[in-house]
Amino acid sequence: MYHKIIVDEFSNSLLNLKKILEKTAKQAETKKVDFQVLLNSRLIADQFTLLRQIQIACDTAKLAAARLAGKEAPVHDDKETTLSELNERIDGIVSYLKSYSVADFDSAKTSKITQPRWEGKYLTGEEYLLYHAIPNLYFHITTAYAILRSNGFDIGKKDYLGELPFKT
Amino acid sequence: MYHKIIVDEFSNSLLNLKKILEKTAKQAETKKVDFQVLLNSRLIADQFTLLRQIQIACDTAKLAAARLAGKEAPVHDDKETTLSELNERIDGIVSYLKSYSVADFDSAKTSKITQPRWEGKYLTGEEYLLYHAIPNLYFHITTAYAILRSNGFDIGKKDYLGELPFKT
Repeated sequence: MYHKIIVDEFSNSLLNLKKILEKTAKQAETKKVDFQVLLNSRLIADQFTLLRQIQIACDTAKLAAARLAGKEAPVHDDKETTLSELNERIDGIVSYLKSYSVADFDSAKTSKITQPRWEGKYLTGEEYLLYHAIPNLYFHITTAYAILRSNGFDIGKKDYLGELPFKT
Repeated sequence: MYHKIIVDEFSNSLLNLKKILEKTAKQAETKKVDFQVLLNSRLIADQFTLLRQIQIACDTAKLAAARLAGKEAPVHDDKETTLSELNERIDGIVSYLKSYSVADFDSAKTSKITQPRWEGKYLTGEEYLLYHAIPNLYFHITTAYAILRSNGFDIGKKDYLGELPFKT
């Protein structure tokens, strides 16, 4: 289930975000809105910009994979300023997630996960996934969506959920 | 893992939402803002109100549990209009989630999940959880948060994530 959530689900959600960005970028062209203005928009002055929400969503997925597999995550210097650089960042993260095998997460559940700001405290891998990684990823993706949506772009929850793998 | 996600994680996230509502209600009092105004606020005119976001988050968790366990979900008539009624709704849903046992989800992974609007198509239980229930729950909780946050209330991601079960 760790591999399914981190590799399949998180990749899918990031790619849905990428499609939302591409869809709104086209709409912005029609509306003669500079997409850079949107990338620097926020819901309120003391919250992160759309650009930063996307970067953090990428980092959340990357760090979840690396920490739960006990690997070192590649460092991203957050230098993206344009949509195409952000799209590349998302694609890079999805490729990175897909480099993980099911076996990479064999000890994920009981591993001890920590980070500097937790000052020596830790969560089990399971707690980290359920109470930190999953809610965090969707927080930043939904906030990115909300910034675009509240600017009047024609997107809906269908775009956020993406194509569901329906069977008949 | 199904029980952990649906019962433990979803309950925790809904209770964090409840705490956010209680915290902002206190701040609203200080600001002399009528909380009813907030409950009827939206990020943009053609999106649901805060009140509706909370109801849908509750329904998403309830339906995930029921569908994945092959049970009939209790019906809620969405008649809440006040914060205390919404808090009761959340508490009721958390109690409902906690009524499920691990064994209730024994066949969740491979069960066929459908709903009327899917016109006969279905997802496996696993697909439904990963691509529908989880992203949906956090979509509505984060949107509820965003409505309050964008109204200038003093809440942060710490409130959204809640108390993490740290160990030393």
